[in-house]
Amino acid sequence: MSFDLVLFGGTGDLTWRKLMPALFQAFRHGKLPEGGRILAVARDERSDAEYRDYIRAKFAGVDEAKQPNDEEYARFAEMLHYRRMDLSQPEDYRGLKAWVDERGASTVVLFLATSPHLFPVICAQLGQAGLNAPHMRVVLEKPLGHDLQSAQEINRVVRAAFTEEQALRIDHYLGKPAVQNLMALRFGNALFEPLWRRESIANIQITLAESIGVGSRGDFYDRTGALRDMVQNHALQLLTMIAMEPPSTNNADAIRDEKLKVLRSLKPFTPETVARDVVRGQYKAGTVAGSKVPGYLEEVKVPTGSTCETFVALRTEVQNWRWAGVPFYLRTGKRMPARDAQIVVNFREVPHPIFPGTSRANKLVIKLQPEDGLELHLLAAKGGGASSSGQELLYPVSLDLDFDKAFPSERVGGYERLLMDAIAGRLNLFVRSDEQEQAWRWVEPVLHAWNADTVGPRPYTAGSWGPAAASALVARDGCTWAEEQ
Amino acid sequence: MSFDLVLFGGTGDLTWRKLMPALFQAFRHGKLPEGGRILAVARDERSDAEYRDYIRAKFAGVDEAKQPNDEEYARFAEMLHYRRMDLSQPEDYRGLKAWVDERGASTVVLFLATSPHLFPVICAQLGQAGLNAPHMRVVLEKPLGHDLQSAQEINRVVRAAFTEEQALRIDHYLGKPAVQNLMALRFGNALFEPLWRRESIANIQITLAESIGVGSRGDFYDRTGALRDMVQNHALQLLTMIAMEPPSTNNADAIRDEKLKVLRSLKPFTPETVARDVVRGQYKAGTVAGSKVPGYLEEVKVPTGSTCETFVALRTEVQNWRWAGVPFYLRTGKRMPARDAQIVVNFREVPHPIFPGTSRANKLVIKLQPEDGLELHLLAAKGGGASSSGQELLYPVSLDLDFDKAFPSERVGGYERLLMDAIAGRLNLFVRSDEQEQAWRWVEPVLHAWNADTVGPRPYTAGSWGPAAASALVARDGCTWAEEQ
Repeated sequence: MSFDLVLFGGTGDLTWRKLMPALFQAFRHGKLPEGGRILAVARDERSDAEYRDYIRAKFAGVDEAKQPNDEEYARFAEMLHYRRMDLSQPEDYRGLKAWVDERGASTVVLFLATSPHLFPVICAQLGQAGLNAPHMRVVLEKPLGHDLQSAQEINRVVRAAFTEEQALRIDHYLGKPAVQNLMALRFGNALFEPLWRRESIANIQITLAESIGVGSRGDFYDRTGALRDMVQNHALQLLTMIAMEPPSTNNADAIRDEKLKVLRSLKPFTPETVARDVVRGQYKAGTVAGSKVPGYLEEVKVPTGSTCETFVALRTEVQNWRWAGVPFYLRTGKRMPARDAQIVVNFREVPHPIFPGTSRANKLVIKLQPEDGLELHLLAAKGGGASSSGQELLYPVSLDLDFDKAFPSERVGGYERLLMDAIAGRLNLFVRSDEQEQAWRWVEPVLHAWNADTVGPRPYTAGSWGPAAASALVARDGCTWAEEQ
Repeated sequence: MSFDLVLFGGTGDLTWRKLMPALFQAFRHGKLPEGGRILAVARDERSDAEYRDYIRAKFAGVDEAKQPNDEEYARFAEMLHYRRMDLSQPEDYRGLKAWVDERGASTVVLFLATSPHLFPVICAQLGQAGLNAPHMRVVLEKPLGHDLQSAQEINRVVRAAFTEEQALRIDHYLGKPAVQNLMALRFGNALFEPLWRRESIANIQITLAESIGVGSRGDFYDRTGALRDMVQNHALQLLTMIAMEPPSTNNADAIRDEKLKVLRSLKPFTPETVARDVVRGQYKAGTVAGSKVPGYLEEVKVPTGSTCETFVALRTEVQNWRWAGVPFYLRTGKRMPARDAQIVVNFREVPHPIFPGTSRANKLVIKLQPEDGLELHLLAAKGGGASSSGQELLYPVSLDLDFDKAFPSERVGGYERLLMDAIAGRLNLFVRSDEQEQAWRWVEPVLHAWNADTVGPRPYTAGSWGPAAASALVARDGCTWAEEQ
């Protein structure tokens, strides 16, 4: 198998921060098929050699263990090519087509690592130039629209040129090993499925916390906000992986059909339930990891008086037989105390406790960040005999699986995984357009309610877990967030 | 609270090998109530000081970490006393009574660490001497009879002098932390109970393997055999802990009622099912841990041509709604490859596999020996992407709990736990007479069938996992023993 991977936006952030390091890791792991070409496309004039040097220099910013040595980079760089294109010019696409056709690779992956406002024009041009043959695929990165209508518009243009199977929407959270293991855990083990339902599960919490602020991207972020940036895509995708029914096969559409069913089962928001079940926040100045940091409104490029949310916590339900009445809490924010992405499945308490001190229930923690891992929290007896009260006391213990330790030589980053899947044409981990649109359909009433609301986001101190209202949201159900347990 | 602990058989094996080290550990852990007295009773004349020296010398055989230093031993030894008694002489019991009454301790524990044939006479004499007041308890060690009738006879004599609540039958396996944790696991966690039934569990295996042979105890062992020595008591007690329904409280009789129900639900043996479902073996010469060892018939004091079994494997079922049709396999033997006591709960396979290579099912391993621990065996994805077949492969991983690591400073040996419970009057871990008799009732048809059988035990090589018939026993159900998986 041979491939051409074309990176539109070939000198941009995403390319050199994420894609090139991921491609190099795949190369190092021997997973990149031999004889492939990686073509970076951008506006400037530069030679292949200049581009290779440009990328080489960027590797200095990568983790040391993931940096190539000179010999490795020389071999990797043989794959790298550069091509100047004006993305509005049909002849430039025809030139690209000729370059691709000359080699005749069995797979051509067109990765749009550009600003999303260029997606429509690029897709249209690719189609017109014939760069949409069956062995060609286009890969799209978020944000895919800022609401349902704009997402539908992008999908309409994409689908005018490509079939659904040719259009791969990346959600890089789906590339994380812990997310793969959600599938493996649920459907490769007989142990969890009987428990994976309302009878055994009290609530589910998905937390995607970042300790960073908006940095220099204040203008972009202010047009987006946490709901669009994290909830509509990543948090909802994780929710579907948790809540889906067992698919009949491990094939992409069998899985995506089940995920779509979950999205369609989410309890729709009304203005009243948005006010009650959604908390938005915006960080004030505070301290994160011992350093003083400015508030959102003091960040560069953030408009004065912005009401953009940097934090969202919400409560929803999946309205079907399996999950009826089980709260799903989603929470994401910037300037939280830690970079901490995890899913916590809180099981119900024992129905009839016979040991004292067993008010703590079992939970399963699926850790996505900073490290992948799995923790099963149980209660155990020390075995040393009864307490002074004459009763055996139970103590919390945790059965742990650290993926880095379990599979030390095989760890693969999210982008590496997704790029290899894109090249191989495995669609399981890419988001289908109907999923994406349904996710927008579900979040839109929140956006509308916020637009109509004059109160704005609740302030929270940088370095905290968000506004107090986020704790109140779960406390209403008698729950607490994981870090409060 | 003050106590007197009287050890009949105060110079014997059990006393100095198990009880004294356990009492010293309890002392060191600060669990032995202040102001208690430990009175060793035996036939010889010796002073308290001589007895203290005798026990001190015996500590040399104990694990170094568990040996007292001189200062510790001096303080511990203050509790130790010695009294000569002729166990057939009523006046000696009256003398003991006077010694006990003089102090007036709130609890008196009379531990019969003698040969079991003395139990009836000691109990009768204790009763006649009034050493059966409500604050007094008698503790009995195995073997309690060699069949149902002899067990009933002992119980009759014991109960003539003591109430059921005053008679504590020790099964030292019940003192092990892993066994405590079976209760904690099942009834302190909501996670396992929904799975703990025929719908989710394929079979349960209890293995109590010893690597040692019969040593110098060939004459005793030959009158006993593995069925009486290990199955009727330890293995069946573990089985009841696994199979019992949730008790309504953590009180002794609530638990023992449930254990009794399990024993009464065990599928009764007939001569036909003994032939089919029970395998007995006797070890031949072989190699264990690199050393050549003799066969059972070559051991000292073993009668020529003995048909005593040193290995038993059997299949039974618990005939109730929870367990109908689930095989329970029990296996014990001497001269096995390792000292290895564990319970393996083999869960059923996933009903509809969507990942390739998932034929291995989940299992929970409860380790009793050599170390206590808990292992939950799952299947996980490496997260690195699909195999060359284009399919995500799953690999076995294990979530582990090592009790020594989880509760490092608090580990308590089985005898220590049971002695402290005996002093405190906590009966949960002692075997009630009806349990013990029911266990005999269940094993008796096996003993009868063997008596009527001229074939005798199957030979197995020392250092193996027993006769091939033991593997065939489980293979008939499509199962394998844990070490064959």
